[in-house]
Amino acid sequence: MSDIIDVTIIGAGPAGLSAAVNTLARGKTLRLFSSSENYLAKAERVDNHLGFYNISGKELMNRFVEHVNAMNVKIEKEKVVNILPFDNHFMVNANGEIIETKKVILAMGISKVKEIPGESKLLGSGVSYCATCDGMLYRNKNAVVWDQSKDAVREANFLNEIGVKVIFISKNQRPEELNSNIKFISGIINEVKGETKVESVIVGDKIIEADAVFMLREIVAPTALIDGLKLEDGFIATNSSMETNIEGVYAAGDCTGKPLQISKAVSEGLIAAQDAAKKIDKI
Amino acid sequence: MSDIIDVTIIGAGPAGLSAAVNTLARGKTLRLFSSSENYLAKAERVDNHLGFYNISGKELMNRFVEHVNAMNVKIEKEKVVNILPFDNHFMVNANGEIIETKKVILAMGISKVKEIPGESKLLGSGVSYCATCDGMLYRNKNAVVWDQSKDAVREANFLNEIGVKVIFISKNQRPEELNSNIKFISGIINEVKGETKVESVIVGDKIIEADAVFMLREIVAPTALIDGLKLEDGFIATNSSMETNIEGVYAAGDCTGKPLQISKAVSEGLIAAQDAAKKIDKI
Repeated sequence: MSDIIDVTIIGAGPAGLSAAVNTLARGKTLRLFSSSENYLAKAERVDNHLGFYNISGKELMNRFVEHVNAMNVKIEKEKVVNILPFDNHFMVNANGEIIETKKVILAMGISKVKEIPGESKLLGSGVSYCATCDGMLYRNKNAVVWDQSKDAVREANFLNEIGVKVIFISKNQRPEELNSNIKFISGIINEVKGETKVESVIVGDKIIEADAVFMLREIVAPTALIDGLKLEDGFIATNSSMETNIEGVYAAGDCTGKPLQISKAVSEGLIAAQDAAKKIDKI
Repeated sequence: MSDIIDVTIIGAGPAGLSAAVNTLARGKTLRLFSSSENYLAKAERVDNHLGFYNISGKELMNRFVEHVNAMNVKIEKEKVVNILPFDNHFMVNANGEIIETKKVILAMGISKVKEIPGESKLLGSGVSYCATCDGMLYRNKNAVVWDQSKDAVREANFLNEIGVKVIFISKNQRPEELNSNIKFISGIINEVKGETKVESVIVGDKIIEADAVFMLREIVAPTALIDGLKLEDGFIATNSSMETNIEGVYAAGDCTGKPLQISKAVSEGLIAAQDAAKKIDKI
């Protein structure tokens, strides 16, 4: 762990990138994490963001990324799995690396994450979003890895290699790259069972005993990321400076609600970053 | 007067242009007025509006204007001098032309207009912001024209030609193009005097008798534009949809307050236009 970072930004869509540009413009240090592809890049055509007419989502994202590249911002492809308030600042867990930071800006877009029964209750008691963080706890034990992102195979192999007994569950065919001594079950997890810790998962009509479930989704739901975050109508609630109910934690872009528009995301990233920088100057 | 226009936008900076783009994107008709140069065009360098790195204010404004041009939006260089609520819609007076419109978006930027003593009190009782609108009322009477915009000379000559006895007041030298039979006084107006109508103006230590004062500023203060508009800390107050306290009148960009930033202006123009379009669909 090195120096305290001023601002840690989670998400590298229009809101996160605008937050990065404006954090740097105010002379602050930052780290920027993004573990999933941005939806904008899939838009066929964008016409209503001023200054860019008849542009594809991919081209527009390229233009945005060029801007942050020109300012030497590195987009780190790690998944942030947990944010812990700690003595007036935050400990951010980025796939096992702990970053100490003064302010956090959540800009992960719309979370399409739908939690399954038992997941919230057993989070931290066998349910994990991060194999490299929690894998060592389950050496010589049974762990289910649920295939929900492109990294799932890599993480299942990692767990297997450190001595976890891995069962890989996927709705797709058995991946070729999956280590041969990993058990494969076809299907999706409907529920996580257990009283105080994970005991089994339900896959269709099968009950599979396990000590841990690794939910390797691309995005962690904001409320699972940080305790006590206030939502309104399913979106992160903020004040007019884009600060959430947790002091020092901001939100910007689609994760704060409608309209789900590029112009709004860019503006909110700016407002969050400027307010964060202003408050850092006052510390 | 032709058909009712859906949205009339006042101001052609980032907020007004973004409002125009998004009004069209929702299939609505619009008129867009701008009587003054945009301050952005004078910015030496802009770095913090995502997607444009190391660009001059002038280049950025050009990019914005290219976008609206590509959508066939005409920026009309007339000054809007009054907005009158009328039977669920509005009558907008653009330098004498009356436009009937369902919604209005105020996006005139920061008003640097500082009213002088007597101005508000006698507005409509001799104080006028528009020579072509009110000139005929002062034929054969004495009217002062105060030089505060590039159009002042043209408007003074117009008044002179329709038979108004014009006195032209300017802190600059007598303009060459000013009709030769117009009286010229060097100075600035400190106060407008009169009980129920204009009687004189004070220029330094001189009292100049007059029946009318034409304040040919480039921008009319928002509160002079429309009656009863609510301000907060000198900026136009809005709700989260950018609607002001007057239903159907929106505000966007610097005129709504800090941060005075391009990204925020672009976003607010979008939000105002989308909300206006949505409500027009419900009428």
